[in-house]
Amino acid sequence: MARLSGRDPSLLRRINSTAVLRVLRSQFGRPPLTLTDLAHATELSRPTVEGVVEGLVDAGLAAEAEEEPGSAAQHARRGRPARRFRFRAEAGYALGVEVGSHRIAAVLSDLTGRTTGTAAREVGEGAPEDQRLAEAHGAVDELLESSGVRRESLRAVGVGTPGIVEADGTVRLGTALPGWTGLPLGERLRERFCCPVLVENDANAGVVAERWKGAAVGAEDVVMVLIGLSPGAGSLIGGRLHRGFGGAAGEIGALHLLGREATPERLLSTTGEPLHPLDEAAVAGVFALARAGDEQARRAMERFVQRLVHDVAALVLALDPELVVIGGWASGLDGVLEPLRGELERYCLRPPRVELSVLGEAAVATGALRLALDQVEDELFSVDAG
Amino acid sequence: MARLSGRDPSLLRRINSTAVLRVLRSQFGRPPLTLTDLAHATELSRPTVEGVVEGLVDAGLAAEAEEEPGSAAQHARRGRPARRFRFRAEAGYALGVEVGSHRIAAVLSDLTGRTTGTAAREVGEGAPEDQRLAEAHGAVDELLESSGVRRESLRAVGVGTPGIVEADGTVRLGTALPGWTGLPLGERLRERFCCPVLVENDANAGVVAERWKGAAVGAEDVVMVLIGLSPGAGSLIGGRLHRGFGGAAGEIGALHLLGREATPERLLSTTGEPLHPLDEAAVAGVFALARAGDEQARRAMERFVQRLVHDVAALVLALDPELVVIGGWASGLDGVLEPLRGELERYCLRPPRVELSVLGEAAVATGALRLALDQVEDELFSVDAG
Repeated sequence: MARLSGRDPSLLRRINSTAVLRVLRSQFGRPPLTLTDLAHATELSRPTVEGVVEGLVDAGLAAEAEEEPGSAAQHARRGRPARRFRFRAEAGYALGVEVGSHRIAAVLSDLTGRTTGTAAREVGEGAPEDQRLAEAHGAVDELLESSGVRRESLRAVGVGTPGIVEADGTVRLGTALPGWTGLPLGERLRERFCCPVLVENDANAGVVAERWKGAAVGAEDVVMVLIGLSPGAGSLIGGRLHRGFGGAAGEIGALHLLGREATPERLLSTTGEPLHPLDEAAVAGVFALARAGDEQARRAMERFVQRLVHDVAALVLALDPELVVIGGWASGLDGVLEPLRGELERYCLRPPRVELSVLGEAAVATGALRLALDQVEDELFSVDAG
Repeated sequence: MARLSGRDPSLLRRINSTAVLRVLRSQFGRPPLTLTDLAHATELSRPTVEGVVEGLVDAGLAAEAEEEPGSAAQHARRGRPARRFRFRAEAGYALGVEVGSHRIAAVLSDLTGRTTGTAAREVGEGAPEDQRLAEAHGAVDELLESSGVRRESLRAVGVGTPGIVEADGTVRLGTALPGWTGLPLGERLRERFCCPVLVENDANAGVVAERWKGAAVGAEDVVMVLIGLSPGAGSLIGGRLHRGFGGAAGEIGALHLLGREATPERLLSTTGEPLHPLDEAAVAGVFALARAGDEQARRAMERFVQRLVHDVAALVLALDPELVVIGGWASGLDGVLEPLRGELERYCLRPPRVELSVLGEAAVATGALRLALDQVEDELFSVDAG
């Protein structure tokens, strides 16, 4: 029953504190705010704001700004100047990590989402899970050290990785990486962090990143396809990540099985023998040959694009997104864009825009960071989370 | 900024009125309620409840219950008995209509959603749009008359029809019915009704119906596939209809084009010549022959099921629903269910449950009715709509 009476005083305190913190953060980088400014912006009384700000300073989330040069003279002339406050972006950090088949990437940010450092290292596609995890931890250690950030300052960690990932971070199915299926990845990672660790499918992280600061800024209904020998897709519906009932949404790799022989490693072969299913370097090689005019490679790429069109069309017809973002391979994707647009125009009742990923190989780690920041913001700025 | 002070008195009146009306409706069919009962259930004061109930009686939404037999004696013994009130389910009606390629169906309900009458009539697949609309109006007139309901008592009308439907009820693309593409269907229908008219894609209406009172009760993530020569799908994501960015979500018919020759009318042919693209009776004929053991028909049906598996797999891989409901043709679908389940088990990383439609040919009109009822409930029971 909706009743507006009977307010909970601790809820009210939290609403007020959240309101003040939001204003402080929104003004981050601009001149610090007086209590009068904050009272005006939040429509709260000045005494209420004063109490709230004290609490935020005690919690390390706000700081009193130092006096500006020349203020001493003002002081002498007009009496004690108004105290001014700012958001402490350095009160905590968020971390995004990609654990991929060929690469570990990590990106660190402060509480405003500003990047404060990155690290990356190669890892063999056949590396067993323990080695891959050790490389991931190594990249994170290196990043924290080079950024001068203590591990305890991390407020949330996001991780993007191939496969179907359960809510607790266990990989239910992950055929692209050795030892990945069944791996309690979240649990293993949490051993080394004292903050929440969120594990997400890599394509899901990618689409979140492209909407944050890539090709999908401002779009609400987006599909991102990570092209590869084991392709995957992530979708936003109404701006929210669509994971599906069992976290398997967008796992379009199996559509290839319906075409039997039409796997990417067969379609892209120029020798009659299929490529190794994880050898993305060989794929880049075929793409380069095709661009150089090699006829056999050109035909192989054409077969591959037809297959890709089919996969993307299936997603587009099912979901009807506003925008499709193509990402995955670092190079050669630009050759895919035009034929893909043309074919989607032919087959889709309402063809979506098709764009290349802006973030490229940074997409998955960046999306993982955004998910970690969302977690931190829920904690700091949401009234419900109290 | 969240502030709980400064209540709007008319908003508060509406919140209170909605609260009382919800309680009255939830108790519909049980003994009527006293003002004390209502005050207790809503946690409102008795004078507030009394004022609100008077308003609801004036608006025709609530009525004072007649005294029960024997109450006269009580009256004499204990003084005037407490007045009791009930929801007036007959204060308005909602109507759901299917305008299909072969059939018009209409279903009428009172404000509790209880069906009070149905009507249906056949219509030729080649009938021009004016004739189809005339048949639809004819079916509605017949239903209103046989139910003794005046047209002015309708509070909302829902309509389900094939094609991509814009928010205003214009059919952007509808290849299954002659003259349908570009038809301002909502506008044409509104000429005859003095209440809101909502037009929805037929498969979207179908999935709403199956969740309301069919195969998908209790499920939140559901895909309904209307099998036919021009197949379509409707999806619920988190219990909400997923229409897509341009209303084209689930329009999987075009996937057939990617298979070039693999259209249902070719796959189902037993003569080498494709069936007529709208001749669903011929399809039922092939299914019946296959069941009777005809080898050529059996092979044709097998080809068709393979095609269907592919379409459904594309939807399942994109969306990862909990449940797939198969509907569309009145007969012969049961033969499709087992092979579909088996193939989805093979191809999908997390195979969904697959069930036949429970509502059958009533699904689209029933879903259209549910959408109309949602509109009425928004108007009566939602605070925002005030």
